[in-house]
Amino acid sequence: MRGTFITFEGPEGGGKSTHVQELAEQLRAEGRTVLVTREPGGTRLAELIRGLVREEVDDPPVTRSEVLLFLAARAQVVSQVIRPALQRGEWVICDRFADSTFAYQGYGRGVDVARLKDLNDFATEGLKPDLTILLDVPPETSRARLAARQAATATAADRIEQAGEFFHRRLRDGFLELAKAEPSRFVVIDSSGPREEVSAQILKAVHDR
Amino acid sequence: MRGTFITFEGPEGGGKSTHVQELAEQLRAEGRTVLVTREPGGTRLAELIRGLVREEVDDPPVTRSEVLLFLAARAQVVSQVIRPALQRGEWVICDRFADSTFAYQGYGRGVDVARLKDLNDFATEGLKPDLTILLDVPPETSRARLAARQAATATAADRIEQAGEFFHRRLRDGFLELAKAEPSRFVVIDSSGPREEVSAQILKAVHDR
Repeated sequence: MRGTFITFEGPEGGGKSTHVQELAEQLRAEGRTVLVTREPGGTRLAELIRGLVREEVDDPPVTRSEVLLFLAARAQVVSQVIRPALQRGEWVICDRFADSTFAYQGYGRGVDVARLKDLNDFATEGLKPDLTILLDVPPETSRARLAARQAATATAADRIEQAGEFFHRRLRDGFLELAKAEPSRFVVIDSSGPREEVSAQILKAVHDR
Repeated sequence: MRGTFITFEGPEGGGKSTHVQELAEQLRAEGRTVLVTREPGGTRLAELIRGLVREEVDDPPVTRSEVLLFLAARAQVVSQVIRPALQRGEWVICDRFADSTFAYQGYGRGVDVARLKDLNDFATEGLKPDLTILLDVPPETSRARLAARQAATATAADRIEQAGEFFHRRLRDGFLELAKAEPSRFVVIDSSGPREEVSAQILKAVHDR
């Protein structure tokens, strides 16, 4: 695979989508071909699956069903979008990937993480990011930013965003533990500071690799 | 678990849905509480997933995504419908279950069957049918009955029904191989004969257990 695969991970409210776009623009300004995608999503089928997982429905997925839906969406976007772009030698930046499954359904909801890694390998056929940028924010900041975003856009919190404070703590600890276990793949960046500073740190981390 | 869990399996055109209903009526006539469900389906979420897997869409699932979608639907119906009914001591009859995954995606599409069994155990938390009735028909009969049904109902073949003859042969051989490996769970019934005869054989098999 000739391209470079970068994922952004972390709790809600860490500015992932903003920084994904900024990094893409910076890399494009350097003359690189960059494909930006997100999870769950990135293909028509995967976006339909995203709807099943994130919307309030009268039959919300049980945890195991939720895991399998996220993995189904991942299998599709990896096979139809990410791998083909990497094979063309492009840069691929993905807003959330496998580590979100390990953090949310593993550390957050208590599914065995080793089991999740095994299931994930089936979905991705073993594809791993070259670099994962963990935008870390304390649970308080994460919740405050989420609330502000919902007020600004007049949207309601979705099923996952509504989970309680204890869940958000386990989630953040989970992401940090994943980063600790794979220091060569992860860069942890404190995302509670000013946006330009965080952005500069991200670009430096990418160039350092 | 106090109830009894019976699944019907086999190639298309074997009369599964007819015989599922007939067995349910016969057991009800004996005074038993019977829940009938189908796969993929059986809950609102699972029926939505069924739509993603079976309809012609412009982004059809790749094989691994298809596997994971079927398993997501299964996790939901097992957790929300099948287990609760078994715990209430009811009879549950399901039109297709795990063996269809092993036959279609395993033997049919070439995914490693041992891997599929492992993934399936995650989805079902190890739930296995007490009895599986395999309605066996030769590929020619299967295809002829399917064509007749489509003509009668003026419907088009879906994505899975359209697969070629070689696929249908592998599928049938797969089902027979699964039955051979677990003779204490499976009963294989030739479904190419008259409906009343097949129905009597099914009822006998259920009473024999």
